[in-house]
Amino acid sequence: MTVDFPAGHGPVPTLAGMPDLDEKTITEAVLRAGSHGSDERLGTVLGALVRHLHDFVREVSLTEAEWAAAIGFLTRTGQLCTPDRQEFILLSDVLGVTMLVDAVAHRRSPTATENSVLGPFFREHRPSFEAGADISGGLPGTPLSVQLTVVDTDGAPVPGAAVDVWHADSAGHYDSDVVGLEGAAMRGLFHTSADGRTSFTTISPAPYPIPDDGPVGSLMRASGRSVMRPGHLHVRIEAPGFSTLTTMLFREDDPYLENDPVFGVKGSLVARYETHEQGEALRHSFVLDRA
Amino acid sequence: MTVDFPAGHGPVPTLAGMPDLDEKTITEAVLRAGSHGSDERLGTVLGALVRHLHDFVREVSLTEAEWAAAIGFLTRTGQLCTPDRQEFILLSDVLGVTMLVDAVAHRRSPTATENSVLGPFFREHRPSFEAGADISGGLPGTPLSVQLTVVDTDGAPVPGAAVDVWHADSAGHYDSDVVGLEGAAMRGLFHTSADGRTSFTTISPAPYPIPDDGPVGSLMRASGRSVMRPGHLHVRIEAPGFSTLTTMLFREDDPYLENDPVFGVKGSLVARYETHEQGEALRHSFVLDRA
Repeated sequence: MTVDFPAGHGPVPTLAGMPDLDEKTITEAVLRAGSHGSDERLGTVLGALVRHLHDFVREVSLTEAEWAAAIGFLTRTGQLCTPDRQEFILLSDVLGVTMLVDAVAHRRSPTATENSVLGPFFREHRPSFEAGADISGGLPGTPLSVQLTVVDTDGAPVPGAAVDVWHADSAGHYDSDVVGLEGAAMRGLFHTSADGRTSFTTISPAPYPIPDDGPVGSLMRASGRSVMRPGHLHVRIEAPGFSTLTTMLFREDDPYLENDPVFGVKGSLVARYETHEQGEALRHSFVLDRA
Repeated sequence: MTVDFPAGHGPVPTLAGMPDLDEKTITEAVLRAGSHGSDERLGTVLGALVRHLHDFVREVSLTEAEWAAAIGFLTRTGQLCTPDRQEFILLSDVLGVTMLVDAVAHRRSPTATENSVLGPFFREHRPSFEAGADISGGLPGTPLSVQLTVVDTDGAPVPGAAVDVWHADSAGHYDSDVVGLEGAAMRGLFHTSADGRTSFTTISPAPYPIPDDGPVGSLMRASGRSVMRPGHLHVRIEAPGFSTLTTMLFREDDPYLENDPVFGVKGSLVARYETHEQGEALRHSFVLDRA
């Protein structure tokens, strides 16, 4: 038995000018829709995002269940964010996007020291010190003596450079996470002398896991990836006439060096921690690029 | 003046086996890192996501300020989500991703009625009605008489199909948003008769804006895009042996038909609302694909 359609009962044929969007034509439709804004750069960025996002969906034939899982993942990621925790930056970090954006933004002279990520533990309110100060806050750990030199790409010293350093303790905790500690420790602002040098003593920073109790941690476990960051010393150097350098120093004998979950390690940022009777010594030169 | 580097004071050369990640090599490094999970499909999907996301960043040379704006946008989007509002689904909708996933998931017979998005207003708890019922809830508006027929791809009627309908009122509000209205209206569950038909009366649905007071609304304004959805009747049809059809019926004279912000309109889903002395009449046939 076949239904008899009286006039007007059947489906209306596709109307002239009405695009019939399918998995191929919808991308062009979205691009057309977004092409009328006054912000040209926004249109360029969003257009490229739409093209790549649609290509991704088509390439893997993303299922509705996977799409729903992705919506749930992104929602939980946003809802975990607080002034003290940024799970979306962490997601960007573990997908290599943060370091990629950094690499694209800082196409430096090949002889200049490379950038790495700022990370979430830098603080604008930090103490200033004279060269040679002890910034360990009296916390237990292997004593570490640090001597830093700042030069330009010709090897000439950069005097008066503002050198910020911050790092974790021997348990992998930054000052704000050390139980019983009040105020700042293992962080401070130094200025280089006429010969481009400064120095301080502290304790050796230990490896630590990225925050792994949220959606990003679940993703890392499901992907079989390590959450341990190799131990590192954060360094940020600002000097008039030079590009600001935000970087880290890793230690060459760190067991987690080759699997940094945030891809912050670069060969040129791996330093030797020399062992002495009283502890360890780290000497490193940073090469600033002219602004 | 050039600084004299004593032995051990200079940067350590790149270590053997230590990849020096730059804007080109970081993608491979992220793909390698994620290739050890036990969930093969997750690895495939995440790997493709990373490749396309990195290609996007490189193509537009995403700046650090734009990256930070994107992090803020995603964070606000997640934080606006509640059990009653899903801003990430809305974002997926306006980027055409929801309809694309639907198109990829439902590669139907070319003669079957096309899918559209379910949207956020379907409710599992809705009243059941006999054919011919008035579901308007007594709300003001243009009376609309609806006659629906459900057939298979051979044109044979599908009896006993469960037909869900839901729609907005003449001001563009669904029942839950109508001030002073208690309980359900403009929604209900019907079952087709032996000849595959059912019918009901209600009021004509009006166009309405997508929720535009959040990050997605800001994005739409910045992109110069309309937030108005054309008026539509949601329809979901389930019948044993057939793929569930989730779709919408639009009206051919709707002023917003060609700029649906969520890309839900397809030519075959545009229907004619016939004008009568007592109001409007809508007759439409839906063609179900075999499961």
